[in-house]
Amino acid sequence: MTTTPNPSPVQLHAADEPGQPTPTPALEELYRGFEKELLVPLWTEIGDLMPAHPRSKAQPHLWRWNDLLPLAERAGELVPVGRGGERRAIALANPSLGGRPFVAPTLWAAIQYLMPGEDAPEHRHTQHAFRFVVEGEGVWTVVGRDPVPMRRGDFLPQAGWNWHAHHNASSTPMAWIDGLDIPFQYASEAQFFEFGRDEISDEERITPDRSRSERLWGHPGLRPLGAPATGPGTPLLAYRWEHTDRALTDQLELEVEGYPGTVEPGHAAVRFNDPRTGVDVLPTIRAEMHRVRRGAETAPVREVGASVYQVFDGSGTVTVGSEQWTVTRGDLFVVPSWQPFSVRSEAGSTDSDSGALDLFRFSDSPVFEALQLHRSETTR
Amino acid sequence: MTTTPNPSPVQLHAADEPGQPTPTPALEELYRGFEKELLVPLWTEIGDLMPAHPRSKAQPHLWRWNDLLPLAERAGELVPVGRGGERRAIALANPSLGGRPFVAPTLWAAIQYLMPGEDAPEHRHTQHAFRFVVEGEGVWTVVGRDPVPMRRGDFLPQAGWNWHAHHNASSTPMAWIDGLDIPFQYASEAQFFEFGRDEISDEERITPDRSRSERLWGHPGLRPLGAPATGPGTPLLAYRWEHTDRALTDQLELEVEGYPGTVEPGHAAVRFNDPRTGVDVLPTIRAEMHRVRRGAETAPVREVGASVYQVFDGSGTVTVGSEQWTVTRGDLFVVPSWQPFSVRSEAGSTDSDSGALDLFRFSDSPVFEALQLHRSETTR
Amino acid sequence: MTTTPNPSPVQLHAADEPGQPTPTPALEELYRGFEKELLVPLWTEIGDLMPAHPRSKAQPHLWRWNDLLPLAERAGELVPVGRGGERRAIALANPSLGGRPFVAPTLWAAIQYLMPGEDAPEHRHTQHAFRFVVEGEGVWTVVGRDPVPMRRGDFLPQAGWNWHAHHNASSTPMAWIDGLDIPFQYASEAQFFEFGRDEISDEERITPDRSRSERLWGHPGLRPLGAPATGPGTPLLAYRWEHTDRALTDQLELEVEGYPGTVEPGHAAVRFNDPRTGVDVLPTIRAEMHRVRRGAETAPVREVGASVYQVFDGSGTVTVGSEQWTVTRGDLFVVPSWQPFSVRSEAGSTDSDSGALDLFRFSDSPVFEALQLHRSETTR
Amino acid sequence: MTTTPNPSPVQLHAADEPGQPTPTPALEELYRGFEKELLVPLWTEIGDLMPAHPRSKAQPHLWRWNDLLPLAERAGELVPVGRGGERRAIALANPSLGGRPFVAPTLWAAIQYLMPGEDAPEHRHTQHAFRFVVEGEGVWTVVGRDPVPMRRGDFLPQAGWNWHAHHNASSTPMAWIDGLDIPFQYASEAQFFEFGRDEISDEERITPDRSRSERLWGHPGLRPLGAPATGPGTPLLAYRWEHTDRALTDQLELEVEGYPGTVEPGHAAVRFNDPRTGVDVLPTIRAEMHRVRRGAETAPVREVGASVYQVFDGSGTVTVGSEQWTVTRGDLFVVPSWQPFSVRSEAGSTDSDSGALDLFRFSDSPVFEALQLHRSETTR
Repeated sequence: MTTTPNPSPVQLHAADEPGQPTPTPALEELYRGFEKELLVPLWTEIGDLMPAHPRSKAQPHLWRWNDLLPLAERAGELVPVGRGGERRAIALANPSLGGRPFVAPTLWAAIQYLMPGEDAPEHRHTQHAFRFVVEGEGVWTVVGRDPVPMRRGDFLPQAGWNWHAHHNASSTPMAWIDGLDIPFQYASEAQFFEFGRDEISDEERITPDRSRSERLWGHPGLRPLGAPATGPGTPLLAYRWEHTDRALTDQLELEVEGYPGTVEPGHAAVRFNDPRTGVDVLPTIRAEMHRVRRGAETAPVREVGASVYQVFDGSGTVTVGSEQWTVTRGDLFVVPSWQPFSVRSEAGSTDSDSGALDLFRFSDSPVFEALQLHRSETTR
Repeated sequence: MTTTPNPSPVQLHAADEPGQPTPTPALEELYRGFEKELLVPLWTEIGDLMPAHPRSKAQPHLWRWNDLLPLAERAGELVPVGRGGERRAIALANPSLGGRPFVAPTLWAAIQYLMPGEDAPEHRHTQHAFRFVVEGEGVWTVVGRDPVPMRRGDFLPQAGWNWHAHHNASSTPMAWIDGLDIPFQYASEAQFFEFGRDEISDEERITPDRSRSERLWGHPGLRPLGAPATGPGTPLLAYRWEHTDRALTDQLELEVEGYPGTVEPGHAAVRFNDPRTGVDVLPTIRAEMHRVRRGAETAPVREVGASVYQVFDGSGTVTVGSEQWTVTRGDLFVVPSWQPFSVRSEAGSTDSDSGALDLFRFSDSPVFEALQLHRSETTR
Repeated sequence: MTTTPNPSPVQLHAADEPGQPTPTPALEELYRGFEKELLVPLWTEIGDLMPAHPRSKAQPHLWRWNDLLPLAERAGELVPVGRGGERRAIALANPSLGGRPFVAPTLWAAIQYLMPGEDAPEHRHTQHAFRFVVEGEGVWTVVGRDPVPMRRGDFLPQAGWNWHAHHNASSTPMAWIDGLDIPFQYASEAQFFEFGRDEISDEERITPDRSRSERLWGHPGLRPLGAPATGPGTPLLAYRWEHTDRALTDQLELEVEGYPGTVEPGHAAVRFNDPRTGVDVLPTIRAEMHRVRRGAETAPVREVGASVYQVFDGSGTVTVGSEQWTVTRGDLFVVPSWQPFSVRSEAGSTDSDSGALDLFRFSDSPVFEALQLHRSETTR
Repeated sequence: MTTTPNPSPVQLHAADEPGQPTPTPALEELYRGFEKELLVPLWTEIGDLMPAHPRSKAQPHLWRWNDLLPLAERAGELVPVGRGGERRAIALANPSLGGRPFVAPTLWAAIQYLMPGEDAPEHRHTQHAFRFVVEGEGVWTVVGRDPVPMRRGDFLPQAGWNWHAHHNASSTPMAWIDGLDIPFQYASEAQFFEFGRDEISDEERITPDRSRSERLWGHPGLRPLGAPATGPGTPLLAYRWEHTDRALTDQLELEVEGYPGTVEPGHAAVRFNDPRTGVDVLPTIRAEMHRVRRGAETAPVREVGASVYQVFDGSGTVTVGSEQWTVTRGDLFVVPSWQPFSVRSEAGSTDSDSGALDLFRFSDSPVFEALQLHRSETTR
């Protein structure tokens, strides 16, 4: 490897800029000396590097499900799934992150699409991943040879370095979203990847109603003493909508009865956790479901790190920093680091239901908590 | 904030590239649809995003102390230290990281320089920092109003969000190196920063031989029951060379006597740890001192994450990936993620000492260990 | 307090006993001097104090449900429940622990009995407790003002320092077992106790099907973000039989299908855990349910610490050390520290079911694990 | 093993005792039924078992060094040290613990004595132990074949299951105190014990100034990367008086300078910690050194669990519950669970020094902290 010294030139700043030395020929010569030796002074860069608070390179942005889904369907027609490309996954690219497929500096969010009878081949990687299903069913994700059905409302985490493949056992296409920490591992340079078998076996093509992981780990408060050891991240491969829905319903009912349970008035929330440890399902990704009662509004909160939301049901108005959008089922948006976020649950123009707004959320918070860098505050 | 959709265009790949769909007008149209909706497919990016193992964007690179120090001295003459620029710190810029002042994707390393009688003003930031002194003395760093002397061989950690300033109480200039996690916090967008007082008080200008932190926390295995609570990171603000040197000497003598103690034959090492917890001094930075006996060679090791080394004493030959350098006192080099590293301790052309090679090292390993992403292997 | 020196006299040992000094008048005089100064030599006591492995002061012992229940019923007629006596609880007293109400040196097990319409008054204590129901229903335990129904098969933990009362809302008496760490806290002298209200309020007399704790914490893998903070021990106050039964059924079915899941062939088991942390429900008590398929036998295991078992269903033959008993529903037995235990599931003389043997177990294992004193081994 | 039912008879209580049923023939018959089935009711025992706060079975008590030492010396003449008796250790027996060699319900404290040239044979046990030296020197304790010198002021922990022997390499006898968790492990039945070699080897008879453990682990804040793995408890086998003394001196000087550092005015204290983890040296035993400035008095504190103190230097007045003693060098006293303790540092009648009162303390606090049972309060 040959070193190729090519830093961008150190810039002289105007003399009246605070903390900057007076531009002189001698200074100019010093700066050229820095460049030659691959050096950059702090004093010309500190404003960008060390801001008073996080100023995300990412922007708040909204992707409409109604725009994404047709493109995924069209990709289903044009782009085969197979070894090399690995997945028919189409990633959200934050508009101010240089066209990289990063919804935020640390997070990946994509719509994945599988045609009837199709398989996505087996592989594994250190990147932590999950799937969340906003509509449809018929695909089984096979994790460590355990076929896991995917249905509307289900959250399906899959911790790093587990072999996994998908197959569509139904007669209709299916779309869902994938969340991963690809950008975080890309930036920190921790990634490993391995190809697995090109074809899964017939015995993995069974379509059970529950995965084996759920039969071992899906009973509340019960640890199976004979379960095989697994690595980092949850051994429970599916968090079913019926449980999530009931937990949220219970919280709102407790509130009505006058007992604690909700996060704030009209706002119920659960976090998906590893049943072995009670901490986040994945070492680098937090996942939650929020329910906001029709008419209620959440307090604006800002937090270190980025969050991505998908509307699971209902409609409402979302405020992120200076942006505001009305959102409905399937819509996805990103809240960059330290941008205030709030949401009001409202009837949409096209829906007639009287229900609440259900929001799926994932974030990079575990990274900051593990490193004692997490902060959050309510800005109202 | 106005969204400015401007991703780089999704590229068609050649038809024979594995996993890529056949280029057709329909595919081309689909890709333009992706761009319009700020989408990027996985299949065109997977090779870069999900490599078989970490392929660092950074290069192995060596900076010679003899080249750095004169530039720092010249900066001492031309660039004042004060509010706004904050520090006369000149950062190592890895040649393949686009001219950013990043020695590695997650780490910052700089030479800092303070003239006789100069002060660097008080501030605090969430970025974790340390100083290491390869030569000289006379500067006190004042952390939380506790003046800490800095002398050759001392390691001086200073965890995030502690107020700190520096002052040179001597009649000679002093240079040292700063290490921080600036790039990591920049990429993950977790940074906070606050200005403190422009001037430290007279009572902080005292020049004690030991800091108050050492008087409380610097006694081996002894916890002071009345010490005030502090935040993340070590409360011990100085790890003195006399202790480090003795620990390394002890290890090599134990080896000679036939007892365990060294890492491998001829290779002694200590890690600087938080005395309250026994873990790394800083939540995101590991720091160690290594001593390699004259004539000994370390086994090649590669590890997830980046390391920066400075030669503290002695000389030798360093191998990083396909690069090889002879190094001597003060030289700094970077080992990017997953690049094999080894060193042989050898007499230098200009030195006559019969001693060992002492290497100071810092790395981002705590980040990966906290997130269960750490891997290392000996490649011999 | 006046000191009352009264140790038992130090005994002279025979001269040929290993490690004992020759009995002489001078030695006798020395021993009397020890007594006067309240001293005891190690060398006369070491055999008892420091055995090669735990030799429990407790014995293996079996209490038959058919003997216990009539006595509890008779107590229901003769002994009122109220302030001062607090509970109509009748404790198992290990035959070799000097008549103390200790089933083992660290554990308490009692049958508790409540007549129709009766209340047990509110109190709280640092002793950790649970209830387990082998038959019947109709009692609500009110923990922190949350009424919790108790039904056959339910496990109801109640961590230390929570206010609690019981009331029988039905028209029939109800018996259940209580397990506590009373002897452990008695020996280590850590106990606090406070009386609460003599009467619970009307609003606590409601008889909901699920406690509020279950509505918040009883959903698998889901953490309620708005739940109030609680102290040590699980916030989930009921582990329902339907979940326990299903988990055990699932494990045995997985075994039949050829997948991991059971502890050993024909032996399924779950541990009741705190959903916040995934560790034991109570800091000092472990609780588990085991199911042994008809005809199967468990491997003999011995473990540091004591266990108490109650037969929940089925019948079989139990071996503890040199004792062996046939057991059936409701029977209780104790396995002292380091005594080998195994069980064979067999049809009983009086039962005709073809089912498995279900055993509820509790132990003091968390104490030893927390202090790094735990050991266990399979003795076959 | 034959069961020998022999509980103490259940007592009828007077009718006017709160919570006790009216004594009747029927009740008497019920109680006899309980006895027959090895049952004991809660309501007759609750006052003793579940007190409002810990009421220790142990008493506060003082043992004078001037009384102990002559008995140890006499034992040195009369009682050989060897296999079987293992150690010439003479234990303090709390006057109200039935003559058992237990200074408190959980703790063992003994004076050990070794004549010139004597050896105590090698063994190991799960009981955690330490030695503390109030006067003299000349003995080496050999832990895991590492000879560790013992000198006035040194604290020498030795975690469970490490092989250890002692030998007196000097020409004078030496006494010191041993602290262990023998009563705790006896009560909880967790003990294992193994004999080692009858004689240590010649190479273990060397008398180095520092143990190998100190050469690896005795450098402040420095972890030796090549040190062999060890079990629970500290790998550092000696905490030297020079460090302890300096740490206490530093704290009192910081106080004089106006900075935090002492526990309360005039009261400095350090805890001996495991350098690998920063927690207590032993899983079941806490050890500390306290220094109280001449004329200062500590605030009365009571705490769950027992403490034993030895006066290391100076003199003063100690108050434990309703007891009060003047104490001087070598005196030992016990503070039972929840008894208030305070001390005033005063010149003794026989000493002329102007120094402080130095108190060595050990306690069972880690047990209670690990199990979340710890409480303490200042009673002034």
